[in-house]
Amino acid sequence: MIYFDNASTTKINAQVLRTYKKVLETYFANPSGTHTLARDVARLQDKARSEILDTLKYTDGKVIFTSGATEANNLAIIGLYQAYANRGNEIIISNFEHPSVREACDYLAKVHGVVINKVPIDANGVIDLKTLKKFLSDKTVLVSIMAVNNEIGAITNLSAIRKVLNGYPKVIFHSDVTQALGKILVNLDVVDAFSFSAHKIHGLKGSGALVLRRKLNPKPLVYGGSQEDGLRPGTHNAPANIVLAQTVRLAVMSQQENIELVGKLAQKLHTLLATRSDLFIINSTLDNPYIVNFSLKTVSASIVLNALENKEIYLGTTSSCSAKLHIPSHTILAISGDEKRANNALRVSFSATNTVDEVITFFKVLMQIIEGANYG
Amino acid sequence: MIYFDNASTTKINAQVLRTYKKVLETYFANPSGTHTLARDVARLQDKARSEILDTLKYTDGKVIFTSGATEANNLAIIGLYQAYANRGNEIIISNFEHPSVREACDYLAKVHGVVINKVPIDANGVIDLKTLKKFLSDKTVLVSIMAVNNEIGAITNLSAIRKVLNGYPKVIFHSDVTQALGKILVNLDVVDAFSFSAHKIHGLKGSGALVLRRKLNPKPLVYGGSQEDGLRPGTHNAPANIVLAQTVRLAVMSQQENIELVGKLAQKLHTLLATRSDLFIINSTLDNPYIVNFSLKTVSASIVLNALENKEIYLGTTSSCSAKLHIPSHTILAISGDEKRANNALRVSFSATNTVDEVITFFKVLMQIIEGANYG
Repeated sequence: MIYFDNASTTKINAQVLRTYKKVLETYFANPSGTHTLARDVARLQDKARSEILDTLKYTDGKVIFTSGATEANNLAIIGLYQAYANRGNEIIISNFEHPSVREACDYLAKVHGVVINKVPIDANGVIDLKTLKKFLSDKTVLVSIMAVNNEIGAITNLSAIRKVLNGYPKVIFHSDVTQALGKILVNLDVVDAFSFSAHKIHGLKGSGALVLRRKLNPKPLVYGGSQEDGLRPGTHNAPANIVLAQTVRLAVMSQQENIELVGKLAQKLHTLLATRSDLFIINSTLDNPYIVNFSLKTVSASIVLNALENKEIYLGTTSSCSAKLHIPSHTILAISGDEKRANNALRVSFSATNTVDEVITFFKVLMQIIEGANYG
Repeated sequence: MIYFDNASTTKINAQVLRTYKKVLETYFANPSGTHTLARDVARLQDKARSEILDTLKYTDGKVIFTSGATEANNLAIIGLYQAYANRGNEIIISNFEHPSVREACDYLAKVHGVVINKVPIDANGVIDLKTLKKFLSDKTVLVSIMAVNNEIGAITNLSAIRKVLNGYPKVIFHSDVTQALGKILVNLDVVDAFSFSAHKIHGLKGSGALVLRRKLNPKPLVYGGSQEDGLRPGTHNAPANIVLAQTVRLAVMSQQENIELVGKLAQKLHTLLATRSDLFIINSTLDNPYIVNFSLKTVSASIVLNALENKEIYLGTTSSCSAKLHIPSHTILAISGDEKRANNALRVSFSATNTVDEVITFFKVLMQIIEGANYG
């Protein structure tokens, strides 16, 4: 089996799973309780918060544990907007955000009349800072731009955006860093809030966080107990929250080593794809080696994916959150305006457990499939 | 160690943990993906839905997986209200609901002007059906009454409520069955929707579901992908969802055996407490042996809890979701109107792993503490 769908989800790290099992068995109490068992769990959970902030060198921050990046993005967009709606009724995002950011904005637009301005990206997936500047006003409450695009892997220069925002001290700058954290070096310190999931970095499913400046208090999405200062009530998934710190630490510790390794895979695949520009359009750059996105010129993506999985090679097309809707790649459409290219995009997404041999096998099989289809 | 705080959370069942580990390692793919690996996970997850419905004999139902009962209750209250707000602007709950139901209602009252009518309970925690009948109107959208109270364990006669609702076919009847499922036999078939958590029945933390009639479509609380028909987007916690079916099955399978075992513990504790009516007021009945709630007449609950935990005996006071706020027991206040009694309530909550010896030890230590405090 060749698994090239790591931007969708990753295999669990054996060390993380061992810790989780141990914590779940030993520290099983409800951290909201008042007895020692409960307080021990609460203490470990708070230690995990500090460790996440330390690992990510995010000063003056706090951690709200969530069920993943989708919930964290919603809490950031809907929760922060509703908490600071007195500042205005405008939000700025890019036109290649994850569905959880886009659709949270759609909800605010529809139900609360919020004006959503979408900054375009260029052919390389780079945010148009001039348009961003134009959209900024004294009514802007929130700017949310993802750190690394989940479809083509384009890296956003968060520091450059922060510079543009400097004249607007009240604007909250949020970033979905799900595809960046532990993979790509981004400057988290320039954002006021960021969201991520554990399962994209070999952690548990159903675990993630919204990290934000201590002074920021979003309105909750759900109501109930006093957990997470009432911002995210419900019995804590304490064992998952506790191992989230380890998950982040392990990813960040091996970040440099992993990107060098994955860099070799991406370099190899780019080189192979470039030999056949009659068959492939490469949609991504080597800046982010974790994602190699390319469109098929002569065969439809669905036929190729189907043939690949018969050979136990697994990859994705668009974001998994949209995959089942069979809609063309949102990002490829944004960078190219070409619907056919967006429809026939394939996303190879690596992890450090992949090998150059897998890349070579993949390309060989891919060529066989395309040639079979062309002459079939 | 004696752990008597099972209504707060339970230890993981070793069999459930083994299955979880296996599923997480083998079926790690994202069920929203399009390839075989993804579809295999989606299939297992859908099988888990059917199994939950089968185990609970809930016909014509569907399962929305959530991060637990708090999210499920919010999705039921806020989500169903918003979906069917055209039917009216009134909701009926009891005055002993869990904070996640009460506060979701408070939100609807405050932000959407919904009228929340709270049905009182009598001294035994039984819903006043006459008042319920009085509150019902053609503007009632939703009735939400918990199946088993989380503080005193009182069991609600859901069938009797359904009878009262029969003249109002458009009213949606929801129940928080978190403290009932797998423990107390309740007639789920008479409700239109119910919520529960896995961690109360020896399952995983961060896992639960809202089960509801297929025709009911609540508005989502978060926005994003198309998961759970868009009602609860975000990458599925598929391994947790898959083992939720096993968790429910194991609990329901041993329900009869467990309640007999726990019955002996509760009987013993009631007998012991009854010998000293000068010291204790029993707030619960033997109908539900899982929870024995009693108030201290002569010593404050916090002093006793502290002394108990020095002897490694762990129990709770009020709901853990409120414990840290140091507010008196909401339910004891509702049944007695007596603040001192509500302040000095202790909740012993059993699981089938507890023993009669533990009950005897607990009572002995409790008496020593009280006598020490009285003469100290």
